Amino acid sequence: MLSVLSLHPDRLLPADPATRALARSLYTQVKDLPIISPHGHTDPEWFATNANFGNAAELLLHPDHYVFRMLYSQGVALADLGIGNPAADPRTSWRLFAERYFLFRGTPSRMWLDWVFAEVFGMGVQLCAETSDLYFDTITEMLASAAFRPRALFERYNIEVIATTESPIDSLADHAAIRASGWAGKVITAYRPDPVVDPEFEGFRDNLKTFSDLTGEDTFSWTGYLAAHRQRRAFFASMGATSTDHGHPTAQTANLSVAEVAALFAKVTSGSCTAAEAELFRAQTLTEMAAMSIDDGLVMQLHPGSFRNHNAPVFAALGRDKGADIPTRTDYVHALKPLLDRFGNDNRLSLILFTLDESAYARELAPLAGHYPCLKLGPAWWFHDSPEGMRRFRRMCTETAGFYNTVGFNDDTRAFLSIPARHDVARRIDCGFLAELVMEHRLEDWEAAELAQDLTYNLAKAAYKL
Amino acid sequence: MLSVLSLHPDRLLPADPATRALARSLYTQVKDLPIISPHGHTDPEWFATNANFGNAAELLLHPDHYVFRMLYSQGVALADLGIGNPAADPRTSWRLFAERYFLFRGTPSRMWLDWVFAEVFGMGVQLCAETSDLYFDTITEMLASAAFRPRALFERYNIEVIATTESPIDSLADHAAIRASGWAGKVITAYRPDPVVDPEFEGFRDNLKTFSDLTGEDTFSWTGYLAAHRQRRAFFASMGATSTDHGHPTAQTANLSVAEVAALFAKVTSGSCTAAEAELFRAQTLTEMAAMSIDDGLVMQLHPGSFRNHNAPVFAALGRDKGADIPTRTDYVHALKPLLDRFGNDNRLSLILFTLDESAYARELAPLAGHYPCLKLGPAWWFHDSPEGMRRFRRMCTETAGFYNTVGFNDDTRAFLSIPARHDVARRIDCGFLAELVMEHRLEDWEAAELAQDLTYNLAKAAYKL
Amino acid sequence: MLSVLSLHPDRLLPADPATRALARSLYTQVKDLPIISPHGHTDPEWFATNANFGNAAELLLHPDHYVFRMLYSQGVALADLGIGNPAADPRTSWRLFAERYFLFRGTPSRMWLDWVFAEVFGMGVQLCAETSDLYFDTITEMLASAAFRPRALFERYNIEVIATTESPIDSLADHAAIRASGWAGKVITAYRPDPVVDPEFEGFRDNLKTFSDLTGEDTFSWTGYLAAHRQRRAFFASMGATSTDHGHPTAQTANLSVAEVAALFAKVTSGSCTAAEAELFRAQTLTEMAAMSIDDGLVMQLHPGSFRNHNAPVFAALGRDKGADIPTRTDYVHALKPLLDRFGNDNRLSLILFTLDESAYARELAPLAGHYPCLKLGPAWWFHDSPEGMRRFRRMCTETAGFYNTVGFNDDTRAFLSIPARHDVARRIDCGFLAELVMEHRLEDWEAAELAQDLTYNLAKAAYKL
Repeated sequence: MLSVLSLHPDRLLPADPATRALARSLYTQVKDLPIISPHGHTDPEWFATNANFGNAAELLLHPDHYVFRMLYSQGVALADLGIGNPAADPRTSWRLFAERYFLFRGTPSRMWLDWVFAEVFGMGVQLCAETSDLYFDTITEMLASAAFRPRALFERYNIEVIATTESPIDSLADHAAIRASGWAGKVITAYRPDPVVDPEFEGFRDNLKTFSDLTGEDTFSWTGYLAAHRQRRAFFASMGATSTDHGHPTAQTANLSVAEVAALFAKVTSGSCTAAEAELFRAQTLTEMAAMSIDDGLVMQLHPGSFRNHNAPVFAALGRDKGADIPTRTDYVHALKPLLDRFGNDNRLSLILFTLDESAYARELAPLAGHYPCLKLGPAWWFHDSPEGMRRFRRMCTETAGFYNTVGFNDDTRAFLSIPARHDVARRIDCGFLAELVMEHRLEDWEAAELAQDLTYNLAKAAYKL
Repeated sequence: MLSVLSLHPDRLLPADPATRALARSLYTQVKDLPIISPHGHTDPEWFATNANFGNAAELLLHPDHYVFRMLYSQGVALADLGIGNPAADPRTSWRLFAERYFLFRGTPSRMWLDWVFAEVFGMGVQLCAETSDLYFDTITEMLASAAFRPRALFERYNIEVIATTESPIDSLADHAAIRASGWAGKVITAYRPDPVVDPEFEGFRDNLKTFSDLTGEDTFSWTGYLAAHRQRRAFFASMGATSTDHGHPTAQTANLSVAEVAALFAKVTSGSCTAAEAELFRAQTLTEMAAMSIDDGLVMQLHPGSFRNHNAPVFAALGRDKGADIPTRTDYVHALKPLLDRFGNDNRLSLILFTLDESAYARELAPLAGHYPCLKLGPAWWFHDSPEGMRRFRRMCTETAGFYNTVGFNDDTRAFLSIPARHDVARRIDCGFLAELVMEHRLEDWEAAELAQDLTYNLAKAAYKL
Repeated sequence: MLSVLSLHPDRLLPADPATRALARSLYTQVKDLPIISPHGHTDPEWFATNANFGNAAELLLHPDHYVFRMLYSQGVALADLGIGNPAADPRTSWRLFAERYFLFRGTPSRMWLDWVFAEVFGMGVQLCAETSDLYFDTITEMLASAAFRPRALFERYNIEVIATTESPIDSLADHAAIRASGWAGKVITAYRPDPVVDPEFEGFRDNLKTFSDLTGEDTFSWTGYLAAHRQRRAFFASMGATSTDHGHPTAQTANLSVAEVAALFAKVTSGSCTAAEAELFRAQTLTEMAAMSIDDGLVMQLHPGSFRNHNAPVFAALGRDKGADIPTRTDYVHALKPLLDRFGNDNRLSLILFTLDESAYARELAPLAGHYPCLKLGPAWWFHDSPEGMRRFRRMCTETAGFYNTVGFNDDTRAFLSIPARHDVARRIDCGFLAELVMEHRLEDWEAAELAQDLTYNLAKAAYKL
């Protein structure tokens, strides 16, 4: 017998009846607010071309490393799922997923997917082996219709603004095309300089060359390199960017003298730097980016602590973003000091910190953000972008940093279809948390109502200058 | 006035009435399932000889370092408790414990012991100074009867299979005797090679000598050493072993060249290696064990992160296992990489990871297990084998690793009498956790019912190939 | 419209109705017990002179870095708040605070302040821009009256004993004056030797000189230095001290030979020691202090893990205690071993451990305190001295260390007016935790009632020998 798929209106709200009633009332006031998505990885080409998405596997399985990593962990070959293997039959790949959908019980992927299945595609039965083809056919057919094109979904999703993330050596042609098209959807870029900042990034020196070609600056000289950044940042800002994004292995910053930097930059650009020198260079560039942010007003985001591409054979065969980025212990207190000593007290700088190491929430991040004018805390991120993860974030950060040193929710995703589901989870969890505070008389009910609006909408707009 | 001792049928189930009702219903479906105990430290001699246990202190106090450590922490001399002191009067030792039973309020030891007192020995009043002799006499008298012999308890406890843990230089004579006896109880061994793998283990070189004597291999040559392992692993497998167990200080692995290993092994066996070389050798043996597991199918278990025998004077006077093993911060991401680079994508390998450092749950272990085909997560372990500890395990691991990258419960104990109590705690906590997910509409009720069976029984059988 | 300010009688008690009823009943039994404050930073001069406090800003804003740090993090200049700026108008500073009182939603500061506003000053409306002057005037006027002098408040607060914290080079003149005054309030000192123990403390060598002048010992010789400590400890004990307090950057201890120490001390006193030598010296002094504690019975307290004065420009301009002390990762297992190897098994020593790194609770601190006779756990400290922080402390420590290796609550504050509010939060959270254990049948109700008394009153008196 097939299992019914239905989304309960009270999902994720606390079980205690009085707390649930309060949470529901708060949630009702924010559930329909527009989506502010200031940090994410959707592809601007979707909105530029407004082409139909392909089949179910191509849209929902292939790009979502949250999903295929779990299947892989249980012995399914990535090639069979169509990862790095265009020859795989998408219906067969989809079936491998459908048969193992039970693996996702208790995970946020399950909640996001069920929302997409039920709300977007109108499915009324759960995904499983028996319904695999029904799902594949229904979804694939719907995707071919006009109502399921990227812009239509964007509008249906009530997205007020969405930021994508591009490298300085991206031409932003898609963003230009969106603007030229006359479509009213607000899709902006964000400046993610890792490919020209991280000496260990694939193709770093070639990237610098392209960086030079694009800007006309000598990016192999330190002053030219900085000028190129300034130029591209200005261009990105002209294409709507209000933020930069930095995906470093650690939170290390540095504050070297000009002579020291020049010497380091010479090594780095020669292609012969050590791992320690690469780290020091990344550290120094964060401080340089902060200096530029003070001038041009772009909000900085720092996402440290992921050991990228941990699985060497998978990386060698298939490249980045294959579900093998693993968090590591991350220090902020010592790492950020060089930057903070220089700019920490400057109200013009805004640096949003993320973490994959939850032990830093109460110990380091909340105390730092609760003191330094330039620091704010990004939401629970990546693996922690989940009901339990979001609760830990609020419970461990709020008492020291307050709510107003946080910046609302980021979906941080390339899984476009699930964006409303992700924001909805955050709204529900935040309303539940606020309801708990009211029930314990740690907040008044009217304060919780204000906060629900702030956490859902106002803080993101303010923090990201949107 | 004496206090009544009674075990409430709803103990450990969530307080919210609707959640509790749901949890109770799930628990009812699994509470009587047979016990699968794939990892523990009971003494096979008990089942081989089926001799009666001795007195209350000898059975319940002396071997349980969970218990005597707490008394020691509050100033009771170990000698007075009979630890390392055969001259101590067991009744007097028991009284020292009984008088201080209140120290265990809020601890899992209290729950396990109360279960043993009430369910096994039928006590109806709480242990305290006034009831000390009553307890001592009742328990000691019962232990002398046939119904309280090891095999009778094994059967009464509905244990389907239990694994003990032996060193490669153990003859497994007790296991042979159990088999020869014709008794149907399934007691199997597990291969724990620490005494011949860890150059810092007491008597390491003597152990290697015994290892050689037992196998006929030259265990002081690298190839002979490996051959001896292979031989003993095969013998252990023939005595029922389906797993190996590795109690290293860290999770470090290595992947040295044959020449490097040979040189390292020469140093190690010469008895003059440094601490760093000892660590590197342990690291390399983990990778060697993984290679053998791929061949012979034994499931690996890695239990890192305990600073063993931290109390130097107590260790000098009384030896190992005196309650002074203290957890330390443990890295997995960097430490496991050498092994994972070599075997991480091999579906034939199964490596179960445990931790004493809960900060690794959500940060490292769940992401690793949610990606690598060879990795699974062992249950909350040792100090964390407790209601709050188990809840943290589920809350921090499930969203990223799912339920199906976990392996059910291990009691990991030498306290034989408490084994059903320990499994019962795990069943109650898991059912409570599942009920919470259902209440928040993160799972369907029928899924929770399936999961309750899986977490209690199926996952352990599958993961340990039982 | 102004918002009502009223303190709900059930605040901080668990939301589940049955659990709340139980918690309320426990709380009712302990809420009026006298306050034992064995560790804090009130100024003995207040009780010596019994002078009236000044205005609202001077009393509630300027000394409370919990409060002004949050305002600073949101861009308010410290000078405008009157921090390090006597020229600031206190009414204007207060207004900056009042306008931003919403920033404290969800923080413990908000709860403590609301208690002070409502209970001490009888305010019935919430603090905000509109009520800023009303608050400032009401509070300032009340502070001028006899009923709001320090001794009157001390009595009104039902404080049985309060400890202040002084340096060895403090004359304790205020304490002498209190005793000479004939007032019955029990205000005792505690021995905090950081200024003469930490070579990196401001003015270390001058401090040693004063130490010498006060004691007549040659504090620049190792034996004279130790003798000076012994002498001042005895003097502090004569002024009521029962404890010492050590605010080190790490928990490192050492056990050097006399010759090694003498050589190290020579370097340290020459003013030319390295950071590593300073750390080693601090480490060695902890062990020396332990030796002295065994002789004179003073209870040791170790508060490691704060990166003091993290904000270099703020420290340069305004000095210590400006809200920029940031917690760091802290190891206990390796760090404490030298001291524990020497004195860990000595029942005469009592060493109370605190942490700012909650990841150490279940991993290191509870296992250590659950074994070593000399160790006990201090309460949730500083940033963790909050509802969620206290819950994490109980949930992560109790199962391994039990309740009886903890020492009750410390308010640890210089915010005198909020002391009852802080103890009240602890009592409510502890009663809530106990009620949860009873609801889950992990404790009997009569045990919870006993524990509530112990956690509130008995454990602090016993642990601090009060």
